[in-house]
Amino acid sequence: MGNSFGTLFRVTTWGESHGPAVGVVVDGCPPRIPLEPAAIQRQLDRRRPGQSRLVTQRKEADLVEILSGVYEGVTLGTPISMLVRNEDKRAGDYEEMRTKFRPSHADFTYQAKFGVRAWEGGGRSSARETVGRVAAGAIARRVLGDAGVELVAWVEQVANITAAVDPTAVTMDDVEQNEVRCPDVSAAKKMIAAIDAARKDGDSLGGIVRMVARGVPVGLGAPVFDKLDADLAKAMLSLPAAKGFDLGSGFGGVTMKGSEHNDPFYSDAGRVRTRTNFSGGIQGGISNGEAIDLRVAFKPTATILKPQETVDTDGNPATIAARGRHDPCVLPRAVPIVEAMAALVLCDHLLRQRAIVQ
Amino acid sequence: MGNSFGTLFRVTTWGESHGPAVGVVVDGCPPRIPLEPAAIQRQLDRRRPGQSRLVTQRKEADLVEILSGVYEGVTLGTPISMLVRNEDKRAGDYEEMRTKFRPSHADFTYQAKFGVRAWEGGGRSSARETVGRVAAGAIARRVLGDAGVELVAWVEQVANITAAVDPTAVTMDDVEQNEVRCPDVSAAKKMIAAIDAARKDGDSLGGIVRMVARGVPVGLGAPVFDKLDADLAKAMLSLPAAKGFDLGSGFGGVTMKGSEHNDPFYSDAGRVRTRTNFSGGIQGGISNGEAIDLRVAFKPTATILKPQETVDTDGNPATIAARGRHDPCVLPRAVPIVEAMAALVLCDHLLRQRAIVQ
Amino acid sequence: MGNSFGTLFRVTTWGESHGPAVGVVVDGCPPRIPLEPAAIQRQLDRRRPGQSRLVTQRKEADLVEILSGVYEGVTLGTPISMLVRNEDKRAGDYEEMRTKFRPSHADFTYQAKFGVRAWEGGGRSSARETVGRVAAGAIARRVLGDAGVELVAWVEQVANITAAVDPTAVTMDDVEQNEVRCPDVSAAKKMIAAIDAARKDGDSLGGIVRMVARGVPVGLGAPVFDKLDADLAKAMLSLPAAKGFDLGSGFGGVTMKGSEHNDPFYSDAGRVRTRTNFSGGIQGGISNGEAIDLRVAFKPTATILKPQETVDTDGNPATIAARGRHDPCVLPRAVPIVEAMAALVLCDHLLRQRAIVQ
Amino acid sequence: MGNSFGTLFRVTTWGESHGPAVGVVVDGCPPRIPLEPAAIQRQLDRRRPGQSRLVTQRKEADLVEILSGVYEGVTLGTPISMLVRNEDKRAGDYEEMRTKFRPSHADFTYQAKFGVRAWEGGGRSSARETVGRVAAGAIARRVLGDAGVELVAWVEQVANITAAVDPTAVTMDDVEQNEVRCPDVSAAKKMIAAIDAARKDGDSLGGIVRMVARGVPVGLGAPVFDKLDADLAKAMLSLPAAKGFDLGSGFGGVTMKGSEHNDPFYSDAGRVRTRTNFSGGIQGGISNGEAIDLRVAFKPTATILKPQETVDTDGNPATIAARGRHDPCVLPRAVPIVEAMAALVLCDHLLRQRAIVQ
Repeated sequence: MGNSFGTLFRVTTWGESHGPAVGVVVDGCPPRIPLEPAAIQRQLDRRRPGQSRLVTQRKEADLVEILSGVYEGVTLGTPISMLVRNEDKRAGDYEEMRTKFRPSHADFTYQAKFGVRAWEGGGRSSARETVGRVAAGAIARRVLGDAGVELVAWVEQVANITAAVDPTAVTMDDVEQNEVRCPDVSAAKKMIAAIDAARKDGDSLGGIVRMVARGVPVGLGAPVFDKLDADLAKAMLSLPAAKGFDLGSGFGGVTMKGSEHNDPFYSDAGRVRTRTNFSGGIQGGISNGEAIDLRVAFKPTATILKPQETVDTDGNPATIAARGRHDPCVLPRAVPIVEAMAALVLCDHLLRQRAIVQ
Repeated sequence: MGNSFGTLFRVTTWGESHGPAVGVVVDGCPPRIPLEPAAIQRQLDRRRPGQSRLVTQRKEADLVEILSGVYEGVTLGTPISMLVRNEDKRAGDYEEMRTKFRPSHADFTYQAKFGVRAWEGGGRSSARETVGRVAAGAIARRVLGDAGVELVAWVEQVANITAAVDPTAVTMDDVEQNEVRCPDVSAAKKMIAAIDAARKDGDSLGGIVRMVARGVPVGLGAPVFDKLDADLAKAMLSLPAAKGFDLGSGFGGVTMKGSEHNDPFYSDAGRVRTRTNFSGGIQGGISNGEAIDLRVAFKPTATILKPQETVDTDGNPATIAARGRHDPCVLPRAVPIVEAMAALVLCDHLLRQRAIVQ
Repeated sequence: MGNSFGTLFRVTTWGESHGPAVGVVVDGCPPRIPLEPAAIQRQLDRRRPGQSRLVTQRKEADLVEILSGVYEGVTLGTPISMLVRNEDKRAGDYEEMRTKFRPSHADFTYQAKFGVRAWEGGGRSSARETVGRVAAGAIARRVLGDAGVELVAWVEQVANITAAVDPTAVTMDDVEQNEVRCPDVSAAKKMIAAIDAARKDGDSLGGIVRMVARGVPVGLGAPVFDKLDADLAKAMLSLPAAKGFDLGSGFGGVTMKGSEHNDPFYSDAGRVRTRTNFSGGIQGGISNGEAIDLRVAFKPTATILKPQETVDTDGNPATIAARGRHDPCVLPRAVPIVEAMAALVLCDHLLRQRAIVQ
Repeated sequence: MGNSFGTLFRVTTWGESHGPAVGVVVDGCPPRIPLEPAAIQRQLDRRRPGQSRLVTQRKEADLVEILSGVYEGVTLGTPISMLVRNEDKRAGDYEEMRTKFRPSHADFTYQAKFGVRAWEGGGRSSARETVGRVAAGAIARRVLGDAGVELVAWVEQVANITAAVDPTAVTMDDVEQNEVRCPDVSAAKKMIAAIDAARKDGDSLGGIVRMVARGVPVGLGAPVFDKLDADLAKAMLSLPAAKGFDLGSGFGGVTMKGSEHNDPFYSDAGRVRTRTNFSGGIQGGISNGEAIDLRVAFKPTATILKPQETVDTDGNPATIAARGRHDPCVLPRAVPIVEAMAALVLCDHLLRQRAIVQ
């Protein structure tokens, strides 16, 4: 349980970091959607390890194999099963993790919950699991694209380095121009330097990913528990290393007064718009047609090379210093993952809305 | 769709603000749990309008009627249906909302989504819906209590007034000692004054509720989408006026290094503990036995008495100034609601864990 | 768990036979459906006890109260909560059931499952629970009616008395013309006499309800587990006293050859039709546009006045002879209930299909 | 949607008959269950095409590959992903099906529902999909075995040839002694001859599979919609070619009186038992500890070699005579599939019961 997401556009991911493969089944994709493997591969390549010196150097081609649900170039309406083989497994690098729990990683909690765990590379808790999310998200993105929805995420902050980005204008091309995926070139340079320094120091950094979704139809989201922002919050907090989520004014908005924070409505050639967007595109849990604007806080990566205090599986005091290949900062690779999760949520609610309005 | 929450301990709320009643059905409560109506009423009284001058003066006794699922003082294992009648309905106060959309409220989005809405008092989008959540949460709390779990939430911030509270020691008695539900007495006085001023000014304030859950068993939460923190995030963002959620170090943790942020493990008489709790009690989506520590950001209430720019249902420019009875600040009443939602999540995952381990 | 049904048009029933009330919450009904309480009451009246001498003489007006989700005569798209008060409670009649298990009733299994039970009148296992199903089904029926779907069920068999009914022509008026709800007048008389005799004898009878759904759009039903006939089978077997379900040729079709059983396709003015309907309107789990034609087998009522061998709650041998008011044959009242369940299934799949095709 | 089954022990199948592979993801299997691939392969071999001259001669080794969720010989508690490659694809044999609808097959309804279909071999509607069910069922069976549950299904009827089998004594060895899987040797010979004759005649036969589950704990099944028999009914009707389901006395019981049909309770050394089992092991939707005893009616296979009247995809009259490799009678291969589906239902409810009782 817990490995599926969505109500009508429903994905189920599977796979351990060092098992034979990782993958996903997408159930509920509408039929007759043109689907080229290249569109999926493009997103996987953005998530791939080894794409730059800023990320883990694990060597994985991450080539997607589509096993079902697509026929003569279009979706069938039946489940789309996709898998990616794990190739560069080096269990030896993780030998120490067999008997020692990495601080702030999932080693201890998996062991406590299940009484067993695949200890190499974190098993199911590894960010490698997000391969399935990104592959599924690429399909959701295709459906959303037909509905006029565009998603752009970027790195807004690394450690204490903050970017200045215009959320109304930024494009994916702007984001992809550098390996840290920060469209503020000046900030990007500082971020890269900081990540490099952390990597050399055997340490790690955290940060914030921000995302906007433009062109979202009015009316997506369901009262009361399945509010669009509630489902987005769940989607984002389900990501490895995520520690916070906010929308629009978010945590910053708590010091505003209602008269400052409320977004005045006006009519823009017959379409109801708001003059400000402190709501972040969602009011009462339902999209209002303005850009959805959200942030996700990621903690510094738990796996670091510095020695740390811990206990072993017998409860004895121990010291652990990771070997293996790890991201010194998850932010650059988190960008396509955040987009993928948002796409899953929006696509699901798009289909849900179609069911009740004709 | 969207009005149910939970997998095994599953609640469904219903009701509009000015309809005949609001209520909830709880399906999946284990049998033979002693359940006194007073325990439910106690939580509803904490949520009730009119409980102090800080909150809306709508007069509602909010007396709960239990219609099923409880027999001779214990739960039957069958659905528990509860309702509360709406008594103090003054549709006239809302007449203007029939034709004008309140900025940053759900009036416009409900109309756009459904093509119809119960406009008095926000209908289904009203915070009155949370009656059902709190009643259900009181039952979840009873189940959790038997498992040794204790929940305490408080107001951590109102506007720019911040409380100093020791999360490891604070009790519900500390919280309930004043009407703003802030256990820092000095900060509480300032918050009360600020809310009073906002009320007199026809304006509103936002703030932050913080909550800790102590005694949570190790092992609750499910990889990968139903992580305990992901479900908590969804629970909290499903609340009216919520704009953000974080856990442990949260947004503040993004400037820390991994070597600072990781919580070292040690053995406390055989029990694995952590020396710090930047993780907020959850690692890899699974509880680690430390206190769960989370924050929810609430925006200033959308409904204010000051005149605001808006459009009417025909799209024409208009000005709206709310009448009716409204909370100038949702924070004090949000405290029991945040606890209720956390209780629903934890109780559900407690049952889910029982299903897989014997 | 287990008290909800449906994916998009989702109902949750609650209530015990001798508790304060029984009811239902319908979540997912599309907005702007005109809904008159009389349309719901009409179906409840068909299910009501005391409607003729053939059924239990419990006196219940079964007046429905709509508590939410309907506003100014139309549905809001939010949950529709409905309840019916239990009025004619005579717990004394059931005193013996407190300590003795009725053979083939749910007394023993509820006790074994939950360790507690509301023993008066069977509690949650009572057919009184179907009040909620019928009320919800009346709403589903309204949605289906707009889509051109018509449902007609009737009593096809009581004990060994079989009716001759033309399933292509029978109407609800034909069915409602007598209290046993069998449109074959000659068979109906014999059925009435047989039920009367069983009642006088303190015994009970079983039988078969048959139902057709005409005008069902092509394409409802989902591969592979949520086949339309699979969901109908579940719906019907979830009814009290149901022991079997079949569709089209059903159990009788197993002696046919494929060349006899296959329904030849032909074109009827451009619409693909079948010359025979051994498929019962569903092929590969998906409606083909022909009438859905199904049967439900009901066992003789378990509660009878004759003395029977049983055990008490301590496991000691005992004899039980029911008092209280019971149906000597559930068939006449099962007719509207079977229609209600079919309506729930079809309405749910109608909405599901709308989600994937535009 | 519709390709998943179960609440806590949840399976999702995927794959088309002539796509690259078919498979399944099992989410919710408890951890630390010893799981040998051979136990899964054994069940797949019972389902495999080409295992005897009675079944389709498609050549498939059906070797299962386990991709996740099992580690060092035990389950991890994470999703178990399994796949089987499709090897013997002969799309040419199905060329005619590209443009013509096979009567009583899913060709037409899939086309009508989705507007597209994988026409070779029926695509997703093929019985090849049941590979995933059987693989998942083998795991469920392992969990159930630890709980003392034993499942035995057999062919009870082919066309008008009926077997005489003692349901209280029959074993899987008895069933597996001949290729038609009928433990009544005399009837088996006649069934084999009849199937042979039908095959030579280019025609097909139907029949009935019966199954018993012994050792099922008291208390499985949930009121009111998720009754154990309701979920079994859905499970069985979700199988290709299934047209009916009954339990215990089933359709035959409708001619009995209550006084004959009720199963008297007695105490067997402290355990509550019933003297007869017309209930089929389930009362009020909950297992009573007696053997679950059910029947599934299968129609004659739709795909036959004889020419039949149909229409083409343009709606023009046409004649079709199947080529390709087909089962003249699905019954022998349906036996392990019926067991698999029953195992999925029982395992799911076993876990559900564990969640509410401690």
